Amino acid sequence: MNADIINHVSQIESKLRLDSVTIQSINEALDNNIDQAKELLNNLHFADIADLIDNATLEHKRKIIEIISVSITPEAIALIIKELDTSVMEQVIPMLGEACAQIFALMEIDDAIHVLEHLPEAKQNKIISLLPQEKRYAIREGLSYPENTAGRIMNCDLISIGADWTIAKTIDFLRSNSSVPFDFYEIYVVDDNLHPIGSILVSRVIKSPETEVISTLMNKDIHTVSPFTDQEEVGYLFRQYGLVSAPVIDRDGKLIGMITIDEIVDVIEEEAEEDIMRLAGVNEIDLHAAVLHTVKHRFPWLFINLLTACMTSFVIDMFHDTIHQMVTLAAIMPIVASMGGNAGTQTLAVIVRAIANRDLNMVNNSRIIFKQVFSNCLNGLFLAILGGAILLLWSHDFHLSLIFALAVIINFTMAGFLGAFIPLTLSRIGIDPATASGVFLTALTDIIGFVAFLGLARYFLI
Amino acid sequence: MNADIINHVSQIESKLRLDSVTIQSINEALDNNIDQAKELLNNLHFADIADLIDNATLEHKRKIIEIISVSITPEAIALIIKELDTSVMEQVIPMLGEACAQIFALMEIDDAIHVLEHLPEAKQNKIISLLPQEKRYAIREGLSYPENTAGRIMNCDLISIGADWTIAKTIDFLRSNSSVPFDFYEIYVVDDNLHPIGSILVSRVIKSPETEVISTLMNKDIHTVSPFTDQEEVGYLFRQYGLVSAPVIDRDGKLIGMITIDEIVDVIEEEAEEDIMRLAGVNEIDLHAAVLHTVKHRFPWLFINLLTACMTSFVIDMFHDTIHQMVTLAAIMPIVASMGGNAGTQTLAVIVRAIANRDLNMVNNSRIIFKQVFSNCLNGLFLAILGGAILLLWSHDFHLSLIFALAVIINFTMAGFLGAFIPLTLSRIGIDPATASGVFLTALTDIIGFVAFLGLARYFLI
Repeated sequence: MNADIINHVSQIESKLRLDSVTIQSINEALDNNIDQAKELLNNLHFADIADLIDNATLEHKRKIIEIISVSITPEAIALIIKELDTSVMEQVIPMLGEACAQIFALMEIDDAIHVLEHLPEAKQNKIISLLPQEKRYAIREGLSYPENTAGRIMNCDLISIGADWTIAKTIDFLRSNSSVPFDFYEIYVVDDNLHPIGSILVSRVIKSPETEVISTLMNKDIHTVSPFTDQEEVGYLFRQYGLVSAPVIDRDGKLIGMITIDEIVDVIEEEAEEDIMRLAGVNEIDLHAAVLHTVKHRFPWLFINLLTACMTSFVIDMFHDTIHQMVTLAAIMPIVASMGGNAGTQTLAVIVRAIANRDLNMVNNSRIIFKQVFSNCLNGLFLAILGGAILLLWSHDFHLSLIFALAVIINFTMAGFLGAFIPLTLSRIGIDPATASGVFLTALTDIIGFVAFLGLARYFLI
Repeated sequence: MNADIINHVSQIESKLRLDSVTIQSINEALDNNIDQAKELLNNLHFADIADLIDNATLEHKRKIIEIISVSITPEAIALIIKELDTSVMEQVIPMLGEACAQIFALMEIDDAIHVLEHLPEAKQNKIISLLPQEKRYAIREGLSYPENTAGRIMNCDLISIGADWTIAKTIDFLRSNSSVPFDFYEIYVVDDNLHPIGSILVSRVIKSPETEVISTLMNKDIHTVSPFTDQEEVGYLFRQYGLVSAPVIDRDGKLIGMITIDEIVDVIEEEAEEDIMRLAGVNEIDLHAAVLHTVKHRFPWLFINLLTACMTSFVIDMFHDTIHQMVTLAAIMPIVASMGGNAGTQTLAVIVRAIANRDLNMVNNSRIIFKQVFSNCLNGLFLAILGGAILLLWSHDFHLSLIFALAVIINFTMAGFLGAFIPLTLSRIGIDPATASGVFLTALTDIIGFVAFLGLARYFLI
């Protein structure tokens, strides 16, 4: 049954799907039969062509650009370019040659900004200088706002009406005014000072009687943002309040732009992904980046890890004599460290996301930390019993097993505390709580695990 | 300047912000002054009241529900309930008492399904049995689809028109038909068999001349889904093709529902978050869950970690004599293991997200793995030189430093391979690539690190 449905669904889809088979055939066609490649590319959705370019070798990238430059419209090329992976843009845009200016002129302002902000400044300026004056001005303004702010993703083509307008007047205005764009979901209501005071969905404009006045129909619960608002904050507002769009206002409170939910889908994805990468000590997603770029961006956290690991090593070396007297300790100590690290990472992941979702605040901080400590302490107890039993069976040394169990409980409890405390503290002092919390956390759980285990062993066993 | 803007923005906002100060005052009012608490709650946005309930103690949860039950409308309570954390729903819904059925009757179908699917079956059935027949039927149908599928998040109140309709006829239909909902963004165009063949944005309906025919205006590039499609796949379609809504079709290809972008915002967030949690070995976000629930859900991965750590321990014990002859090895070996683990985790995070974003396929698998291995190998080389130098300064033992450096390079290279190979293999055999890849990866980089270092040391040093 399920297979039936899937077959049916794929039959309905007019476009070719970008699966492995398709990619394989396109790759072969690019090498041997350019006409066939052209036909295959013509059947792909522009977003899929962008994916294809992202993943292609340099030679194939060039061939694909050559083909699409003659076979599809500049409007469609503009759509493809904006969907490229940001690390690929810099490589591909010079391949467009003379057509470059025309393509950028056809992009929406926010899309053009998205592409330009990933190019080196010289290239950025060159392209901007070739654009029509109005676009040039709008793009320069967008780029004047800091990266990852609302100003970079807002759309300036917005529609505003008066609160005293009737539905009839509103519909008339929307139909007759040529500056009103074709695609929008929500219209803003502004007062005499152009301050937004409400919003109304287009569908409600259509559904309401013609004589009704906007002020009685509009939604007054609007959530304005400044162009300087961080895009993460904007994403939060959309999720928290179920927004379809948000008005952007300037310093005087005047409406200057809007952000729509389709922009925010990418922001939300990006921000969650950023947390994954930061927790793993990766500065940015570097799948399509050059090897040297990847190496350079991953190095700093590995270097910090080298330093923290040296500290750990130094700590272990303080127990040189203890280990010498009982080498088995050296074999067992990584269990204590590794389990503490994993238990701490579990807490860390939960807390980092809770902070991102604004589920934590000053008021419940201590309760949350306590709960994490208590949960980890309990799991530590269970695993200490299990691990202690395994060790007892293996070594037949009751005291060793007992000390192992104690060290596990200590490390788990501390891991729970640190897994919550580190991100909460980073967040309070204004540092992204995901930033390499993982590296510091595991360094600490390593050290605590080794010291607890070797310390107890020196004191009680030797 | 920024502060000005922020001040202005918060003045514009009609509602109270849920910051620490507000939470603190509400908590105090709940304890001492119920009237004041009522007033404060009345000024909060429903989504913020939901957050407040999520974070409140059991006693405060009960008081808040008591207050809102009398002070706000059942419609508003319905909005609050659907925004609650899923682990809190089960606790809070019984507190609603008699009003429960009325509140569920006021929810939209997809929201009611979202709440009900998180309740135990007995309670689920009891609530459903109290609902009006039409709702009961629709909810039972939604719940008949598997969890996390399109069927659970689709909206059945959809609007479809014929391709031969004029704009005038369409507007007339939208205005006069009472079954057309108030809030929608896109209208579907269907053929005689009710198969969707296109879509048109409401704004385009308003903007187009009244005599134009829908077939010439509609967007034919629609992406249909089956109610059985995984919500992750639906989220991918929305992001990849920039969709505002997607039609859901049954086995015969008939239009039966639609999914809108506002539902998908939560799905995208959830799916990315799921990856973070799985990578960290957490089954679900358990911030608001009871301690025992948290303990139970985190235990399995910790137990697996205990077993893998025991294996590591067993491997180290094979070098018992080597360590006994040179205890310093025991102090240095965790550096090799820890750095390999971190390097592998970097690769893992990038690959897991690349799989989630469909950036990887059979064709480029090997190229991607090779790049990861090569990047890690280079970083391994740099860090081996740095770490080796530190070790040489500390131990004055050139051979030891050389062996350390070799072991680091081996472990980094293997970590790059495994960080890419493990998730790609899991994905190919149909297992979520994020599922505890982290636990297995670090187990392997530990073992490889210890074996490489201790093995080389036994062979060359002792």
